[in-house]
Amino acid sequence: MKAPANLAEKLATFTDRFSPRTVATYNDNDIMVAKLEGPFHWHKHEDTDDFFLVLSGTLDIELRDRTVTLNPGEVFVVPKGVEHRPVARGEVHILLIEPTGTPNSGDKATAAPRILV
Amino acid sequence: MKAPANLAEKLATFTDRFSPRTVATYNDNDIMVAKLEGPFHWHKHEDTDDFFLVLSGTLDIELRDRTVTLNPGEVFVVPKGVEHRPVARGEVHILLIEPTGTPNSGDKATAAPRILV
Repeated sequence: MKAPANLAEKLATFTDRFSPRTVATYNDNDIMVAKLEGPFHWHKHEDTDDFFLVLSGTLDIELRDRTVTLNPGEVFVVPKGVEHRPVARGEVHILLIEPTGTPNSGDKATAAPRILV
Repeated sequence: MKAPANLAEKLATFTDRFSPRTVATYNDNDIMVAKLEGPFHWHKHEDTDDFFLVLSGTLDIELRDRTVTLNPGEVFVVPKGVEHRPVARGEVHILLIEPTGTPNSGDKATAAPRILV
């Protein structure tokens, strides 16, 4: 059984952007923290929803028909199959949940590795 | 597709303790907020892990062999099958994730209803 994870402490262990770190697992999902800055690219996950909780900063999640803006303490779930582009206004810290093995970029060729911290 | 959920606003819609409210769904899981105060009872979930993120206050999660203490911004996942007893020091607000249909008490007879807010 893992120890509890302090999200701020885990975030302090790295500086790279768009490279989530796994802090815990829940059933077959990775519970991750990530630092985002600026735009990511358009992508979708065919097989899974995508859970975002903003911890600090402001994150726009662009969808093809609208943009969802998340401030700290706000949750949004992008349904599976829905194209989205996260755009961070400055530096943004998030809690992210995806099934273990899901490529964060929507494509295994460009996915960040899953790193446990 | 649901709107984003502001956790503080969702928490402000109710006052009862140990009665989680669903604010979003992720795959087949309920993303919930709950207000805890004092001790819950010993229970376990045979089929699922149990995800806790403390949003405010201090939560002890008693296990049979030790106690895990969570402050705001701290995550702990109780593995499936592991007996645990949450004990809130005063009022505690949490984000909780369990598969849809999981009885929060570990027993359908005593489970709080799943209420969407």
